Amino acid sequence: MNQFENALDKNTANYTALSPLSFLQRASEVYPDLCSVIHGARRYTWSETYNRATQLAAALHGKGIGLGDTVAVLAPNIPETLEAHYGVPMCGAVLNAINTRLDANTIAHILEHGGAKLLLLDRELSGVAAAALSQLDHKIDVIDIDDSEMDPERGGKLIGEMDYETFLLTGSDLAKSFQWQLPADEWQAISLNYTSGTTGNPKGVVYHHRGAYLNALSNISGWTLPHECVYLWTLPMFHCNGWCFPWSLPVVAGTSVCIRDISAGSIYKAIAEHGVTHMCGAPVIMNFICNATSEEKQPFSHTVNMMTAAAPPPAAILERIEAMGFNITHVYGLTETYGPAVICAWKSEWNKLPADQRARLKARQGVRYQMLEGLDILDPETMLPVPRDGETIGEIMFRGNIVMRGYLNNKEASDAAFKDGWFHSGDLGVIDSDNYLRILDRSKDIIISGGENISSIEIEDVLYTHPQVLEAAVAARPDDKWGETPCAFVGLQQGATVTDSELIEYCRERMAHFKCPKTIVFTELPKTSTGKIQKFKLREQAREMGSL
Amino acid sequence: MNQFENALDKNTANYTALSPLSFLQRASEVYPDLCSVIHGARRYTWSETYNRATQLAAALHGKGIGLGDTVAVLAPNIPETLEAHYGVPMCGAVLNAINTRLDANTIAHILEHGGAKLLLLDRELSGVAAAALSQLDHKIDVIDIDDSEMDPERGGKLIGEMDYETFLLTGSDLAKSFQWQLPADEWQAISLNYTSGTTGNPKGVVYHHRGAYLNALSNISGWTLPHECVYLWTLPMFHCNGWCFPWSLPVVAGTSVCIRDISAGSIYKAIAEHGVTHMCGAPVIMNFICNATSEEKQPFSHTVNMMTAAAPPPAAILERIEAMGFNITHVYGLTETYGPAVICAWKSEWNKLPADQRARLKARQGVRYQMLEGLDILDPETMLPVPRDGETIGEIMFRGNIVMRGYLNNKEASDAAFKDGWFHSGDLGVIDSDNYLRILDRSKDIIISGGENISSIEIEDVLYTHPQVLEAAVAARPDDKWGETPCAFVGLQQGATVTDSELIEYCRERMAHFKCPKTIVFTELPKTSTGKIQKFKLREQAREMGSL
Repeated sequence: MNQFENALDKNTANYTALSPLSFLQRASEVYPDLCSVIHGARRYTWSETYNRATQLAAALHGKGIGLGDTVAVLAPNIPETLEAHYGVPMCGAVLNAINTRLDANTIAHILEHGGAKLLLLDRELSGVAAAALSQLDHKIDVIDIDDSEMDPERGGKLIGEMDYETFLLTGSDLAKSFQWQLPADEWQAISLNYTSGTTGNPKGVVYHHRGAYLNALSNISGWTLPHECVYLWTLPMFHCNGWCFPWSLPVVAGTSVCIRDISAGSIYKAIAEHGVTHMCGAPVIMNFICNATSEEKQPFSHTVNMMTAAAPPPAAILERIEAMGFNITHVYGLTETYGPAVICAWKSEWNKLPADQRARLKARQGVRYQMLEGLDILDPETMLPVPRDGETIGEIMFRGNIVMRGYLNNKEASDAAFKDGWFHSGDLGVIDSDNYLRILDRSKDIIISGGENISSIEIEDVLYTHPQVLEAAVAARPDDKWGETPCAFVGLQQGATVTDSELIEYCRERMAHFKCPKTIVFTELPKTSTGKIQKFKLREQAREMGSL
Repeated sequence: MNQFENALDKNTANYTALSPLSFLQRASEVYPDLCSVIHGARRYTWSETYNRATQLAAALHGKGIGLGDTVAVLAPNIPETLEAHYGVPMCGAVLNAINTRLDANTIAHILEHGGAKLLLLDRELSGVAAAALSQLDHKIDVIDIDDSEMDPERGGKLIGEMDYETFLLTGSDLAKSFQWQLPADEWQAISLNYTSGTTGNPKGVVYHHRGAYLNALSNISGWTLPHECVYLWTLPMFHCNGWCFPWSLPVVAGTSVCIRDISAGSIYKAIAEHGVTHMCGAPVIMNFICNATSEEKQPFSHTVNMMTAAAPPPAAILERIEAMGFNITHVYGLTETYGPAVICAWKSEWNKLPADQRARLKARQGVRYQMLEGLDILDPETMLPVPRDGETIGEIMFRGNIVMRGYLNNKEASDAAFKDGWFHSGDLGVIDSDNYLRILDRSKDIIISGGENISSIEIEDVLYTHPQVLEAAVAARPDDKWGETPCAFVGLQQGATVTDSELIEYCRERMAHFKCPKTIVFTELPKTSTGKIQKFKLREQAREMGSL
C-alpha cells in the first residue's frame, strides 16, 4: 500500500454522490428570488421551484413510492414537467417522461414495460392516456395536471384521483416527516427514456444521477451557458430529459420559458417578450423560424443561441437563420447518450471563412462533448478506428460517463449495444483529418447501388440547397439492375414550380452521377413528435415501389 | 432488488474514472493546433503540450516512478510546471508543487515528509534546492529545467542529472512501450500541496482525480470561462495547483500566458500583447495593477476578468480597479478545498446599485462553488448553523467532492479537520440573510476588547478606504484594562502625510469607537510568497509591544 492510501478515506466531509438534485438545492440557496420558470402568466422563483419539487417528493413518498419505483409523466413543456425532473428522483424514484405524441398502444406498452406506479398527466392528454390505461391489467395512480395556461376550449377530462396542486399540498403536510436525500450511490437510476422506436420496438434507456450531473455540466462548458440565461423550451422535455437542460439551468440560474404550443409565432413572441438567449430544437424548429410569416415575426436586437441536432443543418438554412440573429451550435447524440454527446466545437479562426465554408464546417457533428470520455468511428468487425480521411465509413461509437446504464429489462439489447466495450450507435460516419466526425447515415439508411455505398444525407444536403425545396429525405428503392437506387421524397416551398427532372439535373450538376436520386416523390414528409423525419416510413414506401 | 439494479452494471462503455487528464487528451484531439501556452518567445499547441506531458510520464515511468510515488516540482509559472500537472499523474504519480519562496529548511521538510522521489527544478532555484537536498539523508533524482526565457545573468547552476528536454527525449524513446492510463479509481491521489504554514507546521494536503476534475469545472461554470480565453498566470501554480486552472483550461481551449516575474509592467505587457481575458491573484496583484506607474501601464480596450481571494478586496480598490477595465470576481477557499470553493456569485440586479454598495456586496466571500456540496457557518460546539443574521459568528465549514482526502501521514490532523462530518476551516464568519457569507477572521485574528469581539478585517476595510493608505493589517495588542486593543499596521501611499491620530479619527467617524485602533504603526507589511499578509508576524509584534 502506498502512503496515499493510508488513512485518507472517504467520509461525509469529502465525498458526496454526484446528482443534479444538488444543483436545484444550491439554486434555492443562492438564487432564491430569481425567476426559475415563466409560463404565460405563471411565474416561479428558484425557492418556489425547490419547494414544489420537495413537496412533490414528499407527496410521492406518501403514496408509498420510493427507491427504484417508476413515475411517469405525460405532459408538454410546463412547470410541472420541470418539477418532476427533481421531485421524482428526490424521493428515490425514476422519472419516465413519455412522448406526448405517441398513440395509446405505445403509451400502454411503455407504462407496462417501465412499471410506472403513478402517472402525472396533463389534462389535454387524458384522452389518449385513458385509452392507454384501459389496456393495462393493473391500476396506476393518476394525478391530473390542470394547467391554467391551457385553453379550456381544448378540453381534456380530469381522470385522476386529485389534481397536481392538491397533491403538492399533501406533500406539504408530509414535509415535516419526510426529508429528501441525495442518492446513496451516484450510479442510482434517475430516469427512464424510451427510444423513439423508429428502428423497432421502443427500448427503455436508463440514466443515472452521475451521468445526469455530468451532461448537465457538458451543456454549460460546451455552450458557455452564462449566468441568468433565458432558455426557451422548444425541445420537448420528454426527449432525453430535454437534453439534460432541466438539470443544467439551476447551475447558472437560467430561467426556463415554457410554451405549450411550439410555433413560429410563439417562438418569436417569447424571444421578444422575455429576451430568450438560448433554445434547442430539431431542424424543424429552424424551419419554423426561417419560414415565419411577417405577422408571426417579432423584432429583437440580441443574439439567440440555438442548439440543434437530429440532422445536419443544411447549409442554406444555416446561412439564412444566422443572418436573422440566431447563432447555431450543432450537436449530435442519442437517447442512449443523455442527448447531446457530440458537439461541433466552433473555432474562432473559422469566423474568417466565407459563409458557405462556415456552413459546411458547422454541418459536421464534430467532437466529443467535454464530459464524454471516448468517441470514435470504428470498423465494427475489427473494432479498429477508421483512418481520419473523411472517406472511410465506420460506425460511430461512444464510451464514458454519459452513456446509459443500459436498456431496462433487456439484457440482450444492452449486451449487443455494449459489445466490445463501446456503445454502438448504429450510425455510420466518417472522420475528417481534424478529428471532427460527420454522420453519413443510420446503418439502414445507406443506399447500396451497384456495390457503392451512397449516403442518403449527402443527397439530402444537395437537395436542401435548392431554393424551392423546403425539406427532403432520401431512401433506397429496390432496383433489379443496381440492387438499390436513391429515391428522394421532397417537400416544396409554397408556390414552388420545380419539376422532378429539374431536381435530378440539379443534383447531377453537384455530385457524382451514381449518387443522384433516380426517383423524386413530391410529398409532405412524415415526422415524429420531435420533428425528426420518419425515415422508416419513407424506406417502407420506397421499398414498396419496387424496381424502377 | 428493484428492476433498475438488474443487469445495468458498469462496463468500459458506460463508466470512466473522472480525471482532468481526460481534458488534456480531448484538447489534443479537438484543438491540436490552437495555442496552449505562451511563454516569452516559447509557444506550444495543445498537441505539443499533450505530447510533452506524455513524454514526461514515460520518462518518469522509465525512472521507476509510478502509482503513489511523489514527484516534486520547484519552478515558477512556466510551461514545464503546467506540463507536470499532467505528466506526473499520467504515470500514476502524485505532483507536489513546492512554493518557490520557501527557505531551504522548509523545502527539505516538504521533500522529506512528502517522500518525493524526483525533483523537477528550475535552475534559478537550484541554490535553495541544493541546500535543502543536502539536509536529506537520502538522494532524490533531480531534473534541471533550463528555461530559455530566464535572464542568464540571474545565474543558477544546473545540479541535476540531466535537463528537462533531454529527460523528455528519454520519454519519447520509451513512448512505444509505455502507454499512460487514466486512474483505475477516481479517488486516486493526483497532487500533494503543503499548507502555507502561517499557523504552524505545513501539512500535506492530498487531492484526488475526482476533485481536480470537478473543481476544474467549477471554475468554468462559476466564472463562465469562455472558449479560447487567454489566461495570465499571476497566481502561482504551486498555490493549490493554481486553483485547478491548469486543469480547467484544456476544457475550453484556453491559452496560458506564463511570466517568470510578476510585476505591474509584466502584467500590463501581457494584457496588451496577448489580449489576456482572465487572471487570478491575491490582492497584492490588484495593488500592482492599481499602483502601476505610467511607464508600466499599457492601454487595452477589452475587459480583463480577475478572480481574487485571500482577503476581501477593499471597496476602495475594487472601485478603482473596475474603473480601469478589470472585472473582479471574489472567491474564497483553502488549500484543503482545491483553492476556490466559495464564490461571490454576482447577480445582475446588483449592477444597478451605487458603486460603494456594489463593492460592499462584492467584498463578501459568498456562496458555495457549483461543485461544492455543502457550505455553512456552524457553531463548532453544537454543530448547528448560525442564524442568517449577518451578526452571529461561527466557523466556516465545508463538505463535498472538492474537499481534500486528508493530510498526508497525519491522521490526527485529518480527524480533527473532519470532526463531525464537516471540514473545519478555522475561519470565522457570519452569514447574511441572502445566504452569502462573510469571513470575519481566522479564529486567532479576532480581537477581544472589553469582552467584545472585534473583527480585524472590519477595521482594515475602513482603513483601506482612506486615500493615503496603501495596505493595512490589524492585530490584537495586549491591554491591562481591556484585555486587548486593536493595533493597526499601515503601509502608506508614496508621498502620504497622514498622521496616526488623523487615521484614528478617520476610523472613529466611520465605526463604533470601541472597534477603532488604539495604536497605528506605519510600516511595510510582511507578506508570504503568494502575497498574503503574514499576520502572524504582526500579531507577534503587537503582542511584544505590551500594554498601551
